[in-house]
Amino acid sequence: MLLTQKNTIYYHPQGKEISVFEHCFRNQLPLMLKGATGSGKSRFVEYMAQQLDRELISVLCHEETSTVDLLGRYIIKGADTEWIDGPLTQAVRNGAIIYLDEIAEARPDVLVAIHSLTDHRRKLFLDRHHETLDAPPNFMLVASFNPGYQRGYKELKASTRQRFVMMTFHYPNKEIETQIIVNETNIDKNTALKLVNIAAKIRGLSELGLSETISTRLLVDAAKLIYSGLAPRLACRVAIVETLSDEPDIQSSLQDIINMNF
Amino acid sequence: MLLTQKNTIYYHPQGKEISVFEHCFRNQLPLMLKGATGSGKSRFVEYMAQQLDRELISVLCHEETSTVDLLGRYIIKGADTEWIDGPLTQAVRNGAIIYLDEIAEARPDVLVAIHSLTDHRRKLFLDRHHETLDAPPNFMLVASFNPGYQRGYKELKASTRQRFVMMTFHYPNKEIETQIIVNETNIDKNTALKLVNIAAKIRGLSELGLSETISTRLLVDAAKLIYSGLAPRLACRVAIVETLSDEPDIQSSLQDIINMNF
Amino acid sequence: MLLTQKNTIYYHPQGKEISVFEHCFRNQLPLMLKGATGSGKSRFVEYMAQQLDRELISVLCHEETSTVDLLGRYIIKGADTEWIDGPLTQAVRNGAIIYLDEIAEARPDVLVAIHSLTDHRRKLFLDRHHETLDAPPNFMLVASFNPGYQRGYKELKASTRQRFVMMTFHYPNKEIETQIIVNETNIDKNTALKLVNIAAKIRGLSELGLSETISTRLLVDAAKLIYSGLAPRLACRVAIVETLSDEPDIQSSLQDIINMNF
Amino acid sequence: MLLTQKNTIYYHPQGKEISVFEHCFRNQLPLMLKGATGSGKSRFVEYMAQQLDRELISVLCHEETSTVDLLGRYIIKGADTEWIDGPLTQAVRNGAIIYLDEIAEARPDVLVAIHSLTDHRRKLFLDRHHETLDAPPNFMLVASFNPGYQRGYKELKASTRQRFVMMTFHYPNKEIETQIIVNETNIDKNTALKLVNIAAKIRGLSELGLSETISTRLLVDAAKLIYSGLAPRLACRVAIVETLSDEPDIQSSLQDIINMNF
Amino acid sequence: MLLTQKNTIYYHPQGKEISVFEHCFRNQLPLMLKGATGSGKSRFVEYMAQQLDRELISVLCHEETSTVDLLGRYIIKGADTEWIDGPLTQAVRNGAIIYLDEIAEARPDVLVAIHSLTDHRRKLFLDRHHETLDAPPNFMLVASFNPGYQRGYKELKASTRQRFVMMTFHYPNKEIETQIIVNETNIDKNTALKLVNIAAKIRGLSELGLSETISTRLLVDAAKLIYSGLAPRLACRVAIVETLSDEPDIQSSLQDIINMNF
Amino acid sequence: MLLTQKNTIYYHPQGKEISVFEHCFRNQLPLMLKGATGSGKSRFVEYMAQQLDRELISVLCHEETSTVDLLGRYIIKGADTEWIDGPLTQAVRNGAIIYLDEIAEARPDVLVAIHSLTDHRRKLFLDRHHETLDAPPNFMLVASFNPGYQRGYKELKASTRQRFVMMTFHYPNKEIETQIIVNETNIDKNTALKLVNIAAKIRGLSELGLSETISTRLLVDAAKLIYSGLAPRLACRVAIVETLSDEPDIQSSLQDIINMNF
Repeated sequence: MLLTQKNTIYYHPQGKEISVFEHCFRNQLPLMLKGATGSGKSRFVEYMAQQLDRELISVLCHEETSTVDLLGRYIIKGADTEWIDGPLTQAVRNGAIIYLDEIAEARPDVLVAIHSLTDHRRKLFLDRHHETLDAPPNFMLVASFNPGYQRGYKELKASTRQRFVMMTFHYPNKEIETQIIVNETNIDKNTALKLVNIAAKIRGLSELGLSETISTRLLVDAAKLIYSGLAPRLACRVAIVETLSDEPDIQSSLQDIINMNF
Repeated sequence: MLLTQKNTIYYHPQGKEISVFEHCFRNQLPLMLKGATGSGKSRFVEYMAQQLDRELISVLCHEETSTVDLLGRYIIKGADTEWIDGPLTQAVRNGAIIYLDEIAEARPDVLVAIHSLTDHRRKLFLDRHHETLDAPPNFMLVASFNPGYQRGYKELKASTRQRFVMMTFHYPNKEIETQIIVNETNIDKNTALKLVNIAAKIRGLSELGLSETISTRLLVDAAKLIYSGLAPRLACRVAIVETLSDEPDIQSSLQDIINMNF
Repeated sequence: MLLTQKNTIYYHPQGKEISVFEHCFRNQLPLMLKGATGSGKSRFVEYMAQQLDRELISVLCHEETSTVDLLGRYIIKGADTEWIDGPLTQAVRNGAIIYLDEIAEARPDVLVAIHSLTDHRRKLFLDRHHETLDAPPNFMLVASFNPGYQRGYKELKASTRQRFVMMTFHYPNKEIETQIIVNETNIDKNTALKLVNIAAKIRGLSELGLSETISTRLLVDAAKLIYSGLAPRLACRVAIVETLSDEPDIQSSLQDIINMNF
Repeated sequence: MLLTQKNTIYYHPQGKEISVFEHCFRNQLPLMLKGATGSGKSRFVEYMAQQLDRELISVLCHEETSTVDLLGRYIIKGADTEWIDGPLTQAVRNGAIIYLDEIAEARPDVLVAIHSLTDHRRKLFLDRHHETLDAPPNFMLVASFNPGYQRGYKELKASTRQRFVMMTFHYPNKEIETQIIVNETNIDKNTALKLVNIAAKIRGLSELGLSETISTRLLVDAAKLIYSGLAPRLACRVAIVETLSDEPDIQSSLQDIINMNF
Repeated sequence: MLLTQKNTIYYHPQGKEISVFEHCFRNQLPLMLKGATGSGKSRFVEYMAQQLDRELISVLCHEETSTVDLLGRYIIKGADTEWIDGPLTQAVRNGAIIYLDEIAEARPDVLVAIHSLTDHRRKLFLDRHHETLDAPPNFMLVASFNPGYQRGYKELKASTRQRFVMMTFHYPNKEIETQIIVNETNIDKNTALKLVNIAAKIRGLSELGLSETISTRLLVDAAKLIYSGLAPRLACRVAIVETLSDEPDIQSSLQDIINMNF
Repeated sequence: MLLTQKNTIYYHPQGKEISVFEHCFRNQLPLMLKGATGSGKSRFVEYMAQQLDRELISVLCHEETSTVDLLGRYIIKGADTEWIDGPLTQAVRNGAIIYLDEIAEARPDVLVAIHSLTDHRRKLFLDRHHETLDAPPNFMLVASFNPGYQRGYKELKASTRQRFVMMTFHYPNKEIETQIIVNETNIDKNTALKLVNIAAKIRGLSELGLSETISTRLLVDAAKLIYSGLAPRLACRVAIVETLSDEPDIQSSLQDIINMNF
């Protein structure tokens, strides 16, 4: 799955991430973004592609993503066969930024395919197409992975990790998060702040044992429903409480926090 | 498997679920329905599709449902190949409601396929068909999953959960359930009430250790058999007791409850 | 594997099973028969098909039975492809009774294929053939499973179970079983009774730890061999003792029981 | 793998096995032979086929033997496809004896394929070839399995076992075994007797913990090597000791037994 | 993978293995060679093929070696298909010696394919090619397996073992091993003896817990490097120590033994 | 994936590795390099290929690398098929050096394919292409594996290990490492030394429990970012700390070490 994004992206920087990205781009170093669901990794990459005026090609990796999906394949057309570039090949050919989202999920041969692109060689070998591509200076490889739900089963090998510069994304601070909600939903600042306070409270409650805590995305969803006319408590119930847990006890604790704010 | 349903559906609301669905539809937010077997999730979606006058396309996901099943595939016809839209592609093209029933059962690439449809992009990427579809405003994605028999093996990742607004479906209260049975079977209200009392009693007996408790569907089946002339105790035996358990001890406890009512 | 059976079947009812079957047929409710090997489930279905004057199509499910096996597939014939209805499709098209024997053994997509046939929709979706079939009133779906050797690994999900009316089959009582043996083998009633007494004794010996106990079928096999001229003890040895166990100790206990009768 | 055997087979009966086989053949009952490696099951089937003047078709089942291997398949020949009968189909068509050796090793669909052949129906369903075959009276299904190395992982389901009449094969007694060796190798009776004594001694030593004990086949191999001129102790070392175990301690115990005889 | 070897092979007999091989060949008995890596099994087979003036065809079996690899397959050539004999078929057709190296690693159907070749039938059934081959008298089947690293997971079934005459290969004694090293590397006898002493010392140290001990091959490699001019301690380090273990403690013990000799 | 490298490579020897490589090349012995990620194995092979003026063909092995990937395959071109040499075949044909990186990751048939190339035969068998290649004297097989992350699941069999001469690579000493950093990044020697000191400190901290410790590559990445203008602490944070661990506690210990130097 690939997307070419050229529209204007709203992004609120949280630290030096823009500078790190620019230096990696300039030094032709691959970059890996670590962070939980909804912490803004994908949006940041879209924003940087726009800032650097580079095409962005995104691939969401999963358990069955293989080299063929990235490099390309032959398609049979009547009596002929035709080669179709995969997204990684397109990115190398065009000097674009390729974003391999959740790279740890992909099949192992994918990690192999990027080895020669992430060291001094900067080459892509298309064995099946009898072609070797030299990555142009403005090609950049960005990847993401989520150490949170990686526990136990899908680790990145050290031999892959050490090929990347890495940055961790955290949730934005209260002020930034409030502004994001207002920007994306047109809701009043007061309601946005209440939602942010709810999120801050929930994120602090490690005793709830949530597999992953509340992202800004959920707050935006709740704000949209409230702005659209749904009662705030019900909006938070369906956008936040039900989404975070299926356990009645935990749901009731979460709803208590919401009811204290709305 | 897909179905296009346009007939009149009987649905008895249990709470604010209609309002939540409408607000999600209006705000283009994907919705996930949680709840046990027979709690009315599928019927609710059919009802809402009819209310909103949208075509409904349903897919029951299982362990082998893959992206290809949803997006489409090439079929060989003589010397030519022809592209066939899958149900998700049809729904996006036609601005329909797609209902992915038991989504947690599907293969992981299915969850990937819907990512770009469930965020700000609202795009469907048909890489194999070299086509990108923008979802029209009246396209809506609805999914269901059953946290009950999810224990242990098939969880939804947080990165998938947090893309949905969520609602839980519970069994209807006594009055509503009695009315559903009467409506669907034409049985007298008194017999329907007896069946509902049996259900209430069984649902309260957590010590039976049933993997899932009695749904309204079973009561409707029993009522049909009784209305058709089968003895009530035998009808309940084959429609309820045998269906809920294979263990003689549990069956005998269940039959006792039935015998106290008939 | 499918069979179309139209000959006269001998069946000796053990309870109200005929009445339950007829009411299910009349109310268009799917029926599941539970019971051990050789308890007469398959014969009962054949008998009912004959009584109701419906064609019967049987499919014995196993670990690799998939939707394609039931619904149909395209066959390549020279340069053309031809659609071949599977047994379930045939049954729906012809208004026949389909019998899915040992349904719990089949692959999960099979259970999905029958969902829309077992609820208010009564439709069969042939996506690959771009066709939707409405089941006629005299189409009926019957399935079987054996809770005995299901222990641990292959359960039916509650969401499947609750779609069926269910009945359990037990072994016939002595009188009936004697008559079955006489009818099927022409052996004298006295010998048949001895065999039935042996069976009753063995079924009562739970301390033998047999994975499944002696079915009527084994008694019929033994009776055939005796009628054919084999010594009764040897006939019982090869038809009963060796079939029930490979353990010398257990075999010797079983042979003792036989020797006390012959 | 199939073989059609019409030569004269030497077989020395050990009990009433010939009578049991004939009665099964006459009553059209399927027969299963149980017993260890080299206990003479295969040779017995060859002998009976010759006695009854029936063609014999043998299939040695393994973990990947499937229905297609037994029933038949389409082969592509240039632009055409041609149906090729599998060995089971050939046997049914020709009224031959089919011998499914080590049937418990086969894939589960094989057991399904034979169900309708092993009950009152006696039909073979060739769904892929749109053909149903009625087994002629002189078709007979014989199978074998080895309860010895079945421990734990590959059992026959009770629903399969109870379709067969069963017999266990043991090693022949001393006199018979001596004669077999002489017949097959032309060695002098005295040497043959020594080999049989060695076998008797080894079979009695359960404390050696051999996974399977010495078969007549090994004695025949040793006799051949001795007759050919190899020193008896060395012949027994390579034909018996090394074949039965890789453990030096056990090998040395076995060699001691041999040295006491030669 | 197959090889046809006709050059002169150097082989130093260690016992009566040549005589056993010749008697097996003469009596048409299949032979299995047991022994550790580098104990000379393969070289012995090459030597015997040369002595008996038979063509040798070798196949190194691995986890994915299947019947098709041994028997042959159809290859598509333009619009036609062509049958290609596999190595086992070639060996039977030509009356050659087939050597199935590490047979226990192969897939189970391989063991089945050889059954009819290893009993009184001596036939090869090419079902897919509709052909049955009778093995000529000078066809011989030789196999090898390594009981050492077989522990636990890949055993040979007794039903396979008992089809072979078996011999175990051990490492050669000091005198023979010294001569082998001199013959193969032209190194002086004194250095060869030092290497043999090192090997003897290491083979005696069971407390090192090596998964497999030092083979003659490693001594030959070390000798070659020394003869070529590398310092003896360094040659032994890279040819012996590093090859036998990755553990620093064990490596240091091994190096101590080497330093005591050089 | 293969690469043909002919440019000038910078390599700083750490011991006698150049001499060992040359002697192996001269004696036609295969060589295996052991060592952690980033310890310079790949660069060393590139350097040696350049020194010996041989073409180098590299293959990074992974879980799905199979014989076909190394030897070659047929490609369908319209109505014809065409054979394409794989990288190993190319290397043998051209007398090149083949480098099988991380060979233990490959599928087992790969290890088989190289057997006949790594013993006295030095042959490559292309069964599918009906061709046997004799390796020319200047063909050399080099492989690598990483005993570090091999723990438990992917070992090399002794029968494979003992076919290679082996060498272990360690990280370079301080002086050499400093020089490497300066050479590759143009950073001042003082900063390079600080980075090397940081590495030395981290490598000594076994109590951190890192799965693999800091490689020279990470130091080079950090140096590039510093040279490019990123603040040293931030450069080390993203190139070293985040890359080595996801655990906040460990990250904080690592950052402390960095802050003491910058």
